[in-house]
Amino acid sequence: MDNSKIGHHISEQFNKELEDVRNKVMAMGGLVEQQLELAIEALITGNIEQAEFVIGQDNQIDTLEVAIELECTQILALRQPTAFDLRLLLAVIKIVHELERIGNKAKRIAEMAVKLSSHTNAMPKHDMDRMVELVKAMLDNALDAFARMSIEEIPAITERDQKVDREYENIVRLLITHMMEDPRNITRFLDVMTTVRALERVGDHARYICEHLVFMIKGENVRHLTQEELVDKINQPR
Amino acid sequence: MDNSKIGHHISEQFNKELEDVRNKVMAMGGLVEQQLELAIEALITGNIEQAEFVIGQDNQIDTLEVAIELECTQILALRQPTAFDLRLLLAVIKIVHELERIGNKAKRIAEMAVKLSSHTNAMPKHDMDRMVELVKAMLDNALDAFARMSIEEIPAITERDQKVDREYENIVRLLITHMMEDPRNITRFLDVMTTVRALERVGDHARYICEHLVFMIKGENVRHLTQEELVDKINQPR
Repeated sequence: MDNSKIGHHISEQFNKELEDVRNKVMAMGGLVEQQLELAIEALITGNIEQAEFVIGQDNQIDTLEVAIELECTQILALRQPTAFDLRLLLAVIKIVHELERIGNKAKRIAEMAVKLSSHTNAMPKHDMDRMVELVKAMLDNALDAFARMSIEEIPAITERDQKVDREYENIVRLLITHMMEDPRNITRFLDVMTTVRALERVGDHARYICEHLVFMIKGENVRHLTQEELVDKINQPR
Repeated sequence: MDNSKIGHHISEQFNKELEDVRNKVMAMGGLVEQQLELAIEALITGNIEQAEFVIGQDNQIDTLEVAIELECTQILALRQPTAFDLRLLLAVIKIVHELERIGNKAKRIAEMAVKLSSHTNAMPKHDMDRMVELVKAMLDNALDAFARMSIEEIPAITERDQKVDREYENIVRLLITHMMEDPRNITRFLDVMTTVRALERVGDHARYICEHLVFMIKGENVRHLTQEELVDKINQPR
């Protein structure tokens, strides 16, 4: 589907309102991506100042969520849209919620970056590398799919979530070994575990964004489906 | 506010539709409460059969979430409601999502009940008692507030969430001590920690239900507020 789906309204003003909502979601997505990037970087380098910058910026994301949701609710009340426009607004309310949750995880990672700053060697950096790349790509591609209003790439994005889960389990196993070998540092390894779980959850929320996109474009609820069922639904003609 | 707010519509059929949605949310709430109750009981008694019953029932909750959301979307498209009716439907979509998340946590607790069934002594039962009571009461009262469409009790419910968080932190500290003293059983204590965290998250979702209720009844978004700010908003005349 191309963006021309938006733009068929008799009311020029209504078109502008929907375009405005979409642009705000994309701006919010950009900010959330930046927060995640900076938080992970601060974690790896032990840069406390950068981590605190991320923590301080989190309320901007909360504010954006509330503002975009309000805008959607007002459009629903005033324009009483149906079909695609209704789904677009309902999906946006859910997508900004997922973005807020991802922002929250970025803040959590930044908080852990502060706690772990003098123990950056406690991070299994090498083992986390792959997971970090997978999660960042999931978020980036999900936002890209929203911008293009296309669900073509979604099976590839959600498939990556399964890889993230496997990487997560491997890292947890590794951390348990470290804890057993060095019980005095259990608290530190638990902080690392919290960090890695936050990252794993970012992958989940990126997948949920994809599910909301499928609802928006195909009008089908694809929550609680397996990867195979999801792919089937996406490939079904409407 | 009394339930007479619903029932002022010219269309008898529309009234029935809204009543039907409300009844379904209450039925779903009842099922979720039962799942949580059974999961916690299975955890404490080590009853594997009961835990597996909870795990097997979880997809019923997922199905209810999808069905109620579909019903709300259809009413939005066909009736194009505004004001309170619009907010009711938007809030219900969010509330059933919170209920699904709580159901998911009950399933997680049941899974841990299976894993820990031969080590029920690993559970800090006595220390968990208070937290269990607080969380169950939060969910029960939140559902009750929905049924009565009243936000009067909400400050008392959300205040309890702060107590839940403190209980959670105490139990985590206790578990860390156990891990340090008995590193061979770290995996088991991590499972206990997962269980306690799931319980803590139920409290969060019960609080979110309350926030959605405030939005529904007062038309104000109260997410991301402190307890004090929330109480202020609730007490403000509209």
